[in-house]
Amino acid sequence: MTNCTTGAGKGSLSAKTGIEARRIIRAGEWSGHTSGTAPNHVQGNVAILPASLAGDFLRFCQRNPKPCPLLGVSEPGDPSLPTLGADLDIRTDVPAYRIWRHGELVGEVTDIRDYWRDDLVTFVLGCSFSFEQALIDAGIPLRHVLEGRNVAMYRTNIPTVPAGVFHGPMVVSMRPMTAANAIRAVQVTARVPAVHGAPVHLGDPSLIGIADLQKPDFGDAVAVLPGELPVFWACGVTPQSVVMEARPEFCITHSPGKMLVTDLLDRDLAFS
Amino acid sequence: MTNCTTGAGKGSLSAKTGIEARRIIRAGEWSGHTSGTAPNHVQGNVAILPASLAGDFLRFCQRNPKPCPLLGVSEPGDPSLPTLGADLDIRTDVPAYRIWRHGELVGEVTDIRDYWRDDLVTFVLGCSFSFEQALIDAGIPLRHVLEGRNVAMYRTNIPTVPAGVFHGPMVVSMRPMTAANAIRAVQVTARVPAVHGAPVHLGDPSLIGIADLQKPDFGDAVAVLPGELPVFWACGVTPQSVVMEARPEFCITHSPGKMLVTDLLDRDLAFS
Repeated sequence: MTNCTTGAGKGSLSAKTGIEARRIIRAGEWSGHTSGTAPNHVQGNVAILPASLAGDFLRFCQRNPKPCPLLGVSEPGDPSLPTLGADLDIRTDVPAYRIWRHGELVGEVTDIRDYWRDDLVTFVLGCSFSFEQALIDAGIPLRHVLEGRNVAMYRTNIPTVPAGVFHGPMVVSMRPMTAANAIRAVQVTARVPAVHGAPVHLGDPSLIGIADLQKPDFGDAVAVLPGELPVFWACGVTPQSVVMEARPEFCITHSPGKMLVTDLLDRDLAFS
Repeated sequence: MTNCTTGAGKGSLSAKTGIEARRIIRAGEWSGHTSGTAPNHVQGNVAILPASLAGDFLRFCQRNPKPCPLLGVSEPGDPSLPTLGADLDIRTDVPAYRIWRHGELVGEVTDIRDYWRDDLVTFVLGCSFSFEQALIDAGIPLRHVLEGRNVAMYRTNIPTVPAGVFHGPMVVSMRPMTAANAIRAVQVTARVPAVHGAPVHLGDPSLIGIADLQKPDFGDAVAVLPGELPVFWACGVTPQSVVMEARPEFCITHSPGKMLVTDLLDRDLAFS
């Protein structure tokens, strides 16, 4: 399982707004990654679950807001998400989807109208694109972005609060930075709780069960230079890993890096 | 030179408000420390300088707001500070004062009416009492408070921005805490820029020129336990040390721990 920062392929979707991006995707003209498209528009991780599991998952998100920042939840069977986008249809508006049965990947498609059921509930979760932009806008360099790599992600010993069938450890992303930038990054990201919020840890990785920073569980390792601290944020891979561990009879997610582009603006997520 | 967290003697002044505290002090009924008096009322560091130096010092504070958070400045020769307290008279309302000539301590008195001059300008600077209360209210334990010690303070290699005759390195205070509390402490103290604001450093002390945390330049050493980070804030000792280094022909300060109690409430200092 991977989150929104992974899987970027070649080329990019050139759209100015969320509605424009979704129309191109819906018309079948784009099935690639969404990195860089519709600048300043919020993109989201997608998880679609049967209503029988939706209550548990909603409670899981409510109890674990840092790894599971919920941007929107649909009515059962309703493919629209009016708070996230005008005329949004979750069955057609994501570039590519993964179909899962009992925790096993069974297919990857660009349209899920044939898989739609009256009991499916869509969850859209905040993604680190928005908060990475906030950090960059604050003048904080992000090494993995500068080096064109995926962010480094690690399983930790930080427990999540379980809900029904959903439980498991928190996955974190790590960005190395100077102490002054780490202090500034806490302030900047604390203002965006809808995209993971303030860090969950900084400094000694062994204190959260990470044995070797150079061996991430997901993504790419980056150097931590002398005078830098590793700073750890709750990661959107957490809910995906928790859902897969629960092996739901049916589940649909976005394909890595191919996100739902919403009508929300990044600035709407920040409180001041 | 010491700041507001030092010099607490025995007993305490029992007053509910700033105006009540200042009336007791003005009446000559209290010359001790002000720790714990008038709960939730802002206390300030006091520096009184001749007008010939006041412009330089005001610019120094403006250029170095973290170590020199200015709460109020008087008109030359005017002993009132109407924005900080009703009926406040800086000549009588501080429990004890120190008189300095050319950087040398020449006396300690409880009333400066005999020393007053028409060219004196009073500066009141934020003190860490307010931000320590904000940290404690946020559930962050402070070891030096729990152990009844003075906070540990260190000269650093972080330069201040000079102004006229005033220049010198930043002095910081250090509080050890877990990473989770350090992250929370950044958020809590960023909201109170009028009392030093967010930390200036955390983690490796050698990066800011501190050789040994167990040998503070001022105050008392406290243990940094396994799993804790040292977190460093700009300290109100900085302007005092900078003023003394400049050896002004005349200067009056509060005596350590014997602060000006204002009518401002701690909560007035926080933005939300």
